[in-house]
Amino acid sequence: MESPDEFQFLRRFRTRLYILVFETNTRSGRIFDIVLLWTILLSIIAVVLESVDEINSKYGTFFSIAEWTFTLIFTFEYLTRLFISRRPLSYALSFYGIVDLLATIPTYLALFFAGGGYLVVIRALRLLRVFRILKLSRQLGEAQMLGKALVASRHKISVFLGAVLATVIIMGTMMYMIEGGENGFTSIPRSIYWAIVTITTVGYGDIAPTTVIGQLFASMLMLMGYAIIAVPTGIVTAEIAVTHVDQQVKKRDENYKSCEECLTHDHELKAKFCKYCGAVMKKSRRKNVSRDYDIL
Amino acid sequence: MESPDEFQFLRRFRTRLYILVFETNTRSGRIFDIVLLWTILLSIIAVVLESVDEINSKYGTFFSIAEWTFTLIFTFEYLTRLFISRRPLSYALSFYGIVDLLATIPTYLALFFAGGGYLVVIRALRLLRVFRILKLSRQLGEAQMLGKALVASRHKISVFLGAVLATVIIMGTMMYMIEGGENGFTSIPRSIYWAIVTITTVGYGDIAPTTVIGQLFASMLMLMGYAIIAVPTGIVTAEIAVTHVDQQVKKRDENYKSCEECLTHDHELKAKFCKYCGAVMKKSRRKNVSRDYDIL
Amino acid sequence: MESPDEFQFLRRFRTRLYILVFETNTRSGRIFDIVLLWTILLSIIAVVLESVDEINSKYGTFFSIAEWTFTLIFTFEYLTRLFISRRPLSYALSFYGIVDLLATIPTYLALFFAGGGYLVVIRALRLLRVFRILKLSRQLGEAQMLGKALVASRHKISVFLGAVLATVIIMGTMMYMIEGGENGFTSIPRSIYWAIVTITTVGYGDIAPTTVIGQLFASMLMLMGYAIIAVPTGIVTAEIAVTHVDQQVKKRDENYKSCEECLTHDHELKAKFCKYCGAVMKKSRRKNVSRDYDIL
Amino acid sequence: MESPDEFQFLRRFRTRLYILVFETNTRSGRIFDIVLLWTILLSIIAVVLESVDEINSKYGTFFSIAEWTFTLIFTFEYLTRLFISRRPLSYALSFYGIVDLLATIPTYLALFFAGGGYLVVIRALRLLRVFRILKLSRQLGEAQMLGKALVASRHKISVFLGAVLATVIIMGTMMYMIEGGENGFTSIPRSIYWAIVTITTVGYGDIAPTTVIGQLFASMLMLMGYAIIAVPTGIVTAEIAVTHVDQQVKKRDENYKSCEECLTHDHELKAKFCKYCGAVMKKSRRKNVSRDYDIL
Repeated sequence: MESPDEFQFLRRFRTRLYILVFETNTRSGRIFDIVLLWTILLSIIAVVLESVDEINSKYGTFFSIAEWTFTLIFTFEYLTRLFISRRPLSYALSFYGIVDLLATIPTYLALFFAGGGYLVVIRALRLLRVFRILKLSRQLGEAQMLGKALVASRHKISVFLGAVLATVIIMGTMMYMIEGGENGFTSIPRSIYWAIVTITTVGYGDIAPTTVIGQLFASMLMLMGYAIIAVPTGIVTAEIAVTHVDQQVKKRDENYKSCEECLTHDHELKAKFCKYCGAVMKKSRRKNVSRDYDIL
Repeated sequence: MESPDEFQFLRRFRTRLYILVFETNTRSGRIFDIVLLWTILLSIIAVVLESVDEINSKYGTFFSIAEWTFTLIFTFEYLTRLFISRRPLSYALSFYGIVDLLATIPTYLALFFAGGGYLVVIRALRLLRVFRILKLSRQLGEAQMLGKALVASRHKISVFLGAVLATVIIMGTMMYMIEGGENGFTSIPRSIYWAIVTITTVGYGDIAPTTVIGQLFASMLMLMGYAIIAVPTGIVTAEIAVTHVDQQVKKRDENYKSCEECLTHDHELKAKFCKYCGAVMKKSRRKNVSRDYDIL
Repeated sequence: MESPDEFQFLRRFRTRLYILVFETNTRSGRIFDIVLLWTILLSIIAVVLESVDEINSKYGTFFSIAEWTFTLIFTFEYLTRLFISRRPLSYALSFYGIVDLLATIPTYLALFFAGGGYLVVIRALRLLRVFRILKLSRQLGEAQMLGKALVASRHKISVFLGAVLATVIIMGTMMYMIEGGENGFTSIPRSIYWAIVTITTVGYGDIAPTTVIGQLFASMLMLMGYAIIAVPTGIVTAEIAVTHVDQQVKKRDENYKSCEECLTHDHELKAKFCKYCGAVMKKSRRKNVSRDYDIL
Repeated sequence: MESPDEFQFLRRFRTRLYILVFETNTRSGRIFDIVLLWTILLSIIAVVLESVDEINSKYGTFFSIAEWTFTLIFTFEYLTRLFISRRPLSYALSFYGIVDLLATIPTYLALFFAGGGYLVVIRALRLLRVFRILKLSRQLGEAQMLGKALVASRHKISVFLGAVLATVIIMGTMMYMIEGGENGFTSIPRSIYWAIVTITTVGYGDIAPTTVIGQLFASMLMLMGYAIIAVPTGIVTAEIAVTHVDQQVKKRDENYKSCEECLTHDHELKAKFCKYCGAVMKKSRRKNVSRDYDIL
């Protein structure tokens, strides 16, 4: 039977572990996360290098051991997280919970299915934890701003991608009919693949038009791709620029103060009298966040 | 002879059919359109897969039947639309009318001309109907904004394309003279094709300069292409950004009200007195659309 | 001896010819220019098609005759322009004068030097005359705006191109040392050519790194190229956007009127009194162009 | 023993040398720098041409002599700079000092290690001196503005590059598993190299997917790359555009004057009375730099 002391010790231990594993604001939590990130990075590098035949034939055993060591560490870490989490299920179903699980499974799978072991590169997604460490730093703010700009543009981008896909299907089929199988356009799916390779200006050259009409159509597709790359760029740029300007407007707003008489908020800091009710204004530089914009 | 009842039934049936087929605001009309879109999508996938030799040799008969089924459905749909339309001719000559017709013809043509059947991918254009379903949703607004930006840039883009074409003709001819037929530049049209492949940064590599002077010229063309891709991007971006700002200005305008005394329109919603005539203003939040802009 | 009548007839003929050939505002001048443009276009198409072996072997004689006909027409046109021009030398030394001359010479040269005949594609430059026809139309305005944006960005773009060239020279030399001649990097110039092909994302694939270190360096160069394409785009976009906003500011300025008492210019059209001297203002909507900006 | 005169002569000589070598504002210093730049350029061209086998076999001796001459000149120049510099160590450790040293060493190294001689292209970095000559010209201002925009975007760009790298690692591994060694994807590093070649739209075509699923994944990667190139472009563009607007706001600010009574700074130049305290204002066009912005 556990004594109350022992029980309390366990509880305190669990709390401390929780802080170590889940918190990033404390010093120990930070160190834990940094060590974890380097371990993840090393395990990814190990998988990548293991795939090179020359290296694997020499150091194969070493990499096998390394892989199993990393997997056992991550398995232990996953179980610990599950154990100390206040709501284990909600952790297990969260984005990080699923990624943490997927980062360990492939090695076990590889015991039954050859090749499955490479799936451990899913661990690369664990590196996203890096943003948690940098939680309070600039990067996250920038990433959020980028993300915000992308989310704000999602409708425009989906319309754009739809138009690209329609173009690619029609052009691919036409090239299949023009060039035919003897020039590499052996099927419509393959011709659509060629059209994507062309419109995105990748241009491998594994399939290339050889007839005059085919080259004419391909030229049109290229110029089209060249011109319409402008569209997503334009969308994202405009979005970022507007977000940017918004931020600066916000900053400027902090240079306004409120009138305590009539509760209006758009008074310049140097104003001596309220422009709406004429009350004498304080000189305080108090920031004003709840102001409703009426200037762009 | 038809009795009046029967006649009225037919008229009501036609109206109901009209709502089903042409309207998208009613529930049944929406379902009809969604079913139609999936049918179109399936028919396109069938055509695309049919072109793969391995699949066609196995399931050729199945695909032939599917193709004819789809074509008969679309033919029936086209005739129905023609029949129930209040002005059949104006439907037949509208964009959607022509696309609907073109979506059925190729299969019939394929009876006489081999290969013509692939033209049915014109059906991909029917997918544009998707915008009708989303009529009231955001996407259409975004698409319109994109379209507006592109239309507003059409003159600039045509000037730009003209300059690109002139560059490509001159550079293509010079490369034909420099490299000659033994290096793949067998004719001026082919050299122009190469120049387009290069300036758009596609770069298949099926034709590539091998002489030193040829590579020097090609390098210049690449750097040119690299620098001038900035131009269409810049045009579209500026256009989108300006449209964006305009929209926000419009939104802000909705926060202004009119003075009913002197009929001026630029009063802040919180204003108590007209700034021009001094009349007491109403508190109503009535939107004001007819205001003439005097702030950018 | 010429009679005065005959002399006057000649002078009037010359004037009329001048209007026909040089002016584009009159109807006859416009028709002349359009006919000329089509002739130029036809002569370019003839040269381009002549270079295709299959076509030339069949219709060689036809193309020779066409080429000489076009050349004689252009020679006659050039001499006419020289004859009727008020200052023949200044025409001969102008951009159009030089292009007009260069458009005829190659055919004569081809009598002495084989292959020289292809230089007639310089005629493509004559197509720039199209802008003269469209003189008063939108396109020229757009082209000017584009040109203005490019000229305004020329310093930034030259700095950018300088940086790209330095990168390309250094990376090219390093790849020459890493990959060596056996992998296609046979000399530094050729390696620099490869670096340009890579940084501009053209990527022919005629030369490609095969060693691991070479591929690592190439990857870095690609990501660099991918990131820095943003720079010229950003420059031109910002320039175009600013020009755009300027234009709209100008348009808005046309909605301001002047005070005739104190000669200040920034009064809203609806203002009843001058905000500087208090004088009663006219209601006239007279445009005001000489206003000095004090709002961005 | 040196006489004082001789000593003073030496000191004066050193000062004059210092001005010649380090200053660019004097005429002699400018000429020195221009001569130096041409020497650097010539030495780089020599190294580049020497690597071409045909040229080297003919003029090998000439290039060897040229290379040694250039190296001795640069060595002498480096020692002179070191000798006349007031703080030799701080020069030796400065960016230009290190580049100057690295520009001479490789030739000496080449005596011991074959091939090391090509490292002299590091001299290309010495060309950055060109900016010193242009110190007072526009270019530097533009370069600074570009640099500022890039520095301001560094966090966003690093987040973006991180996302690209994660995508490339995961996609590379998946393609390694899908395509396998027989299609060129012989190891994960090589597959990652392929993914970079693809996402940057370079597309050499030395490795290209051949299976249907591989081509599907590759298409997704291309469209992704095509869409996300918009992100760095958008970032830099927005940054440049905002910097641009800032500059114009600054310019405008120079059109404002201060009230000497109440020390407010936002008075239009034409204002006759202070709008805050009513004091009569001077007409002086004195620029006002310390004004705090309250208009974007």
